[in-house]
Amino acid sequence: MSHLQERKPFGQCTPALLASFSTIVGPEHVLTPSTLAADEYARYGRDHTEDLYFQPDVVLRPANADEVSRIMRLCHEYRIPVTPRGAGTGLSGGALPAHGGVVLSTERLNRIIQIDERNLQATVEPGVVNEAFQNAVKEVGLFYPPDPASKGSCFLGGNLAHSSGGPKAVKYGTTRDYVLNLEVVLPTGEIIWTAANTLKNSTGYNLTQLMVGSEGTLGIITKVVFRLLPFPQQNILMLVPFRQEEQAAEAVAAVFRTGIIPSGMEFMEREAIAWSSEYLQIPLTLPDDIRAHLLIELDGQDLDQLYKEAELVYGVLEHYDVGDILLADTATQKDELWRIRRNIGNAVRYNSVYKEEDTVVPRAELPTLLKGVKEIGARYGFKSVCYGHAGDGNLHVNIIRGELTDEQWNVGLRQPISEIFELCVKLGGTISGEHGIGLVQKPYIGIALKETNLALMRGIKQVFDPHGILNPDKIF
Amino acid sequence: MSHLQERKPFGQCTPALLASFSTIVGPEHVLTPSTLAADEYARYGRDHTEDLYFQPDVVLRPANADEVSRIMRLCHEYRIPVTPRGAGTGLSGGALPAHGGVVLSTERLNRIIQIDERNLQATVEPGVVNEAFQNAVKEVGLFYPPDPASKGSCFLGGNLAHSSGGPKAVKYGTTRDYVLNLEVVLPTGEIIWTAANTLKNSTGYNLTQLMVGSEGTLGIITKVVFRLLPFPQQNILMLVPFRQEEQAAEAVAAVFRTGIIPSGMEFMEREAIAWSSEYLQIPLTLPDDIRAHLLIELDGQDLDQLYKEAELVYGVLEHYDVGDILLADTATQKDELWRIRRNIGNAVRYNSVYKEEDTVVPRAELPTLLKGVKEIGARYGFKSVCYGHAGDGNLHVNIIRGELTDEQWNVGLRQPISEIFELCVKLGGTISGEHGIGLVQKPYIGIALKETNLALMRGIKQVFDPHGILNPDKIF
Repeated sequence: MSHLQERKPFGQCTPALLASFSTIVGPEHVLTPSTLAADEYARYGRDHTEDLYFQPDVVLRPANADEVSRIMRLCHEYRIPVTPRGAGTGLSGGALPAHGGVVLSTERLNRIIQIDERNLQATVEPGVVNEAFQNAVKEVGLFYPPDPASKGSCFLGGNLAHSSGGPKAVKYGTTRDYVLNLEVVLPTGEIIWTAANTLKNSTGYNLTQLMVGSEGTLGIITKVVFRLLPFPQQNILMLVPFRQEEQAAEAVAAVFRTGIIPSGMEFMEREAIAWSSEYLQIPLTLPDDIRAHLLIELDGQDLDQLYKEAELVYGVLEHYDVGDILLADTATQKDELWRIRRNIGNAVRYNSVYKEEDTVVPRAELPTLLKGVKEIGARYGFKSVCYGHAGDGNLHVNIIRGELTDEQWNVGLRQPISEIFELCVKLGGTISGEHGIGLVQKPYIGIALKETNLALMRGIKQVFDPHGILNPDKIF
Repeated sequence: MSHLQERKPFGQCTPALLASFSTIVGPEHVLTPSTLAADEYARYGRDHTEDLYFQPDVVLRPANADEVSRIMRLCHEYRIPVTPRGAGTGLSGGALPAHGGVVLSTERLNRIIQIDERNLQATVEPGVVNEAFQNAVKEVGLFYPPDPASKGSCFLGGNLAHSSGGPKAVKYGTTRDYVLNLEVVLPTGEIIWTAANTLKNSTGYNLTQLMVGSEGTLGIITKVVFRLLPFPQQNILMLVPFRQEEQAAEAVAAVFRTGIIPSGMEFMEREAIAWSSEYLQIPLTLPDDIRAHLLIELDGQDLDQLYKEAELVYGVLEHYDVGDILLADTATQKDELWRIRRNIGNAVRYNSVYKEEDTVVPRAELPTLLKGVKEIGARYGFKSVCYGHAGDGNLHVNIIRGELTDEQWNVGLRQPISEIFELCVKLGGTISGEHGIGLVQKPYIGIALKETNLALMRGIKQVFDPHGILNPDKIF
């Protein structure tokens, strides 16, 4: 890509610029270290990635696309780095202002603009919390499936940045599968809609899917049109204990071969479920010989039908060395089981600093991946807690800091993490399923993508962001 | 996009170049007017778009990605335009060699390389016929849903070029929803894989979805990894006659509000079904007062469940002025009904040259679109036959040439077609749902996309194809 320009050095957030920002968003929405308590300001320099911190020069909280556009025009002109930020629940450092400059918070872009019951669609702003959106559409009988573990706090805009999944992705797909159209402010300040509000579209290149998963490097999403589904009224949830981890992983592919597509198929190794139930103080019987669990959910409109499917699932599980299967009886019990699953990350974080690797492989390769991760851990002397969306082949590998030295933690882990990622690629997989590359996986991107792929991506970045100001140096 | 270079004039297919092509693909796979009967050669200059014809300088039939790569390196060096071609069933002129040069036929890239039953995936080449692939995976209990009307002859590569849909798209999505990974030869001759063989991927920009729907302008797909589903073993098919076209269109959105997602929801106005059944010589009772039909299919693994759903659908239909509903009793009857639906395009073509507009709007806006199309037709004095995927809001408007003069046909229709497309956009829709823009919709692209969107697309094209040789001047 010889026509790519060398990037000029970034500009500074001068007092004059700060005054201009103040005119655009109002002085109360221009936050600096001198206007906000230190700990509150520091919040904008962190996310949920390890213990990383970068201080922004200024935090801006625009209220609409027009304000975002005016901010971007200034930043484009003055070469100010801009890092878009949702709720800061990311796990790859994508929202960290690694070059300082502006953090552009979407917290005030938080309206559910329309729920269109005639067309099973909704138009929302990116600062809406995932669960708030789910609940709003559920009230009118509709269903927005993507449900990351952090659904109670994460923003839809962040979900779009990484095409977040969650347990239901196995049946319903990830965030990208629900996006019809996006209003985007480009790094130059221009405002576009990427597509149309239709289920099908064969009108030019797919800018919508190019934006989704681009981790805030190509534009700032200011409105989203989602498609929705009818809400599935019934579900069955079962917790299946296995005496061998790899058998749990093997059973996953076997269930799919019955023709059933579960709405959840979650893998948790012993420590994942033990740490989380303890963290939440939810008592759970965990016999000594149990090494892993599958949490299997079936959903639909008809309970009789689900019981038939559950029988088929039981038929598959009989062939494995399983303990007593717990069939959740009540809504409370279901809620507790899902809370345990969703809080594993929090429980691990409570126990130790950790690095989370978001490995993903074709579903049936999961036992091989799991075995490989443990073998690499044993060889390099680190402990990992593994869990994740087994139905998607998406295994979250949490590497526990424990007693590792700074040197071991910051440098020594590079080689084993590379080996884990190389194993993923060898198995037909890649290095992130739903968390993105951001800052912390960037050193490993070359394992997943060839130089030609990266050159194409850099070329695309250059087309959208000629001065390279938007979330600079993320992904590649 | 000031950094875009002016495109140099295209080069010529000199005898020396033809000799080089011959070395790459073998002399028997270099076709020219002097080596092939005129009518056979002419086939490579046509598709199913109106009666358009462009003669290529040479047709090449490579056997693998390596040969495609070597062809592209030469064409890149000598600035030869290359038009990739599948089965030539396209309806927007995307495969027509409008600048002459090379037609690169994928007819020999026709292997089903692997059907991976463990992972519910398949790896295929782009020259495989859609229906042949469907049948191959069905044999092992798997399901590849996208089924364009031309499924018996169209290639999967062409389906990828436009993200083809078909009747099942309403429940199962279009081609793009089944693509995990693509092997692509870039216009420069480099070979990449766009992603990984995983259900989820958050590793860099989504080059896969950028390729799908790019109508052969960004690269030549040489292998595809598709995800598959378990084959739905049961289905119910009903043909519902309506006494008013718009009521048929209205009933569509009402069915979805019950919570049922049909696997087919097809609209056919009276003449569409009448012409097709006559063309196929399949007798069909068509009372004088019936103006339109919906063909509704429900599918799943459990017949009892489908009958419950059918009762709910009947409950909705009771509120409309419908005739006797035909519930297909046998596989033969189902097959006949689907053949009638699929052959409407052929029946129209048999009756007259026609222009097909692939209009698409949010589902509930279909009655307004249909009414608008008829009103515009009445005002400008042309006849149209309308049918299509009502569940997706995707209405195929066939404008019949009939007695129109050359002037009326070639020039006079531009204004009414523009008005139809403007109506689509006003209703939240766009100008192509699944046929693409290609050559014939290109004059209208500005109705759907703003100049900023087009500039981004041109910039992306420039990144992939710096000399602009691949399917030049299509889309924009």
